[in-house]
Amino acid sequence: MQLSLLDEPAIKIKHADNYDLPIEPSKNVAGAALLALQDAYKKKIGFEIVITKNIKPGSGLGSSAASSAGAVVAANHLLGNIFSKDDLVRFAMNGEKVASGVKHADNLAPCIYGGVTLIRSILPLDIISLSAPPLFVTVVHPQIEVKTSDARQILRKEVQLKNAIMQWGNIAGLVTGFLTNDYNLIGRSLEDVIIEPVRSILIPGFDEVKINSKEAGALGGGISGSGPSIFMLSKEERTAIQVESIMKNIFQSIGVEFKTYVTSINYDGVRVMSQE
Amino acid sequence: MQLSLLDEPAIKIKHADNYDLPIEPSKNVAGAALLALQDAYKKKIGFEIVITKNIKPGSGLGSSAASSAGAVVAANHLLGNIFSKDDLVRFAMNGEKVASGVKHADNLAPCIYGGVTLIRSILPLDIISLSAPPLFVTVVHPQIEVKTSDARQILRKEVQLKNAIMQWGNIAGLVTGFLTNDYNLIGRSLEDVIIEPVRSILIPGFDEVKINSKEAGALGGGISGSGPSIFMLSKEERTAIQVESIMKNIFQSIGVEFKTYVTSINYDGVRVMSQE
Repeated sequence: MQLSLLDEPAIKIKHADNYDLPIEPSKNVAGAALLALQDAYKKKIGFEIVITKNIKPGSGLGSSAASSAGAVVAANHLLGNIFSKDDLVRFAMNGEKVASGVKHADNLAPCIYGGVTLIRSILPLDIISLSAPPLFVTVVHPQIEVKTSDARQILRKEVQLKNAIMQWGNIAGLVTGFLTNDYNLIGRSLEDVIIEPVRSILIPGFDEVKINSKEAGALGGGISGSGPSIFMLSKEERTAIQVESIMKNIFQSIGVEFKTYVTSINYDGVRVMSQE
Repeated sequence: MQLSLLDEPAIKIKHADNYDLPIEPSKNVAGAALLALQDAYKKKIGFEIVITKNIKPGSGLGSSAASSAGAVVAANHLLGNIFSKDDLVRFAMNGEKVASGVKHADNLAPCIYGGVTLIRSILPLDIISLSAPPLFVTVVHPQIEVKTSDARQILRKEVQLKNAIMQWGNIAGLVTGFLTNDYNLIGRSLEDVIIEPVRSILIPGFDEVKINSKEAGALGGGISGSGPSIFMLSKEERTAIQVESIMKNIFQSIGVEFKTYVTSINYDGVRVMSQE
């Protein structure tokens, strides 16, 4: 992503990829984020932005957050870092609203803060950075599109109290596992009884990937974002690589196009790579 | 509580208080817990138990858990500590079932483990001890009875997903606050949007106690157990004592009999006090 400052209050968007994304600022995730930042900035400024997306939209990998977070971090850098991280998350949430219909910070908070983040609350915004032990992440991205807005719609508006209680226990367990470096507890807590049973139906190979990865030693995993990508966490890099071959075998046998990634936790978040 | 070992498979219960609690083992919380322990123990043994309750049943202060946890810890001590803490929680949950109709470990886990405990899951039982910074607890116990079984019945079986999400954030925040000694975060996270709005209706003075205590510097608080007791947490003892006078003033003006307590976290749980 390349951002330039303009001295007129315009936002010009160019795409250097082939995803056919909108260039009208209010309909573009980066554009909507920049509009919010522009609105909060007292002086008359504008931006020209060139976006090269490396991940197909609708992946569940935070592709929309990457664009809106990138745009506001770059803009803030050019303006002398006058806005706080929380400000940037607030601006960028306008981009997420364009993508999913809802102002959420699920992907923006880790993009802008780096590392593992807890969003205790959206209104008021309350983001807490969590320490975590080294973890390796394996992701498979089946090349089918699940729109975040569709994935949100199939969720019921009410959940069973008994399931909510199980989820409270697992979330508390996951946070405790991160903060106390307890890998086993992280694994035991990676069970989503609310969203996963509903959304995983849309994802071919989901159960097989999860079961086989855990048999190979992965701690656990689930749907990445609103899908269709699946993530698995491992303590050791060699396990994460083994999980990747398991994912490859499963998707090859299903016959669905896919991409896989093996990575670790990024502690920096969005970075300014160079400035001319 | 005083427990003696018998060499016949009987359970004899005596009450040294005036609460008119049942003495039939299967209908008494300590009795039901001992029956479960007796069942798991291979040899023929029995117990004689004398119970002196210092807290009126139906307080929300874990009065039933105190009896069932006390009974199994004492019995385990006399048998040479052959059972694990998890075993003891499992036995004692039979006592909680007598009291509330549900096998839960909400009060048993801290009674048996001591300190702050997270119950990630009941089936399988998964209890995790959490470290926490020093905290002072002020409790007001209005002398009205709210039966745990009644308090459970007024809860809806379904909750709004949006409320469940807020609660997930608050629980994660509370655990993070405990583990990172972040008093401010503990305070911000002490908001229950699921149970409290329903159950607090049964508790006179609830909102006034909460608002005035927080104004006086308490971190936050809520319903203790299923009520009617109210607890508030403070960082400083002097705040906890000030909160106590606030509670006293409110309940005196309402005209409801009450008891108050100022205490700190007990890190030992149930203790064997002496053995003859």
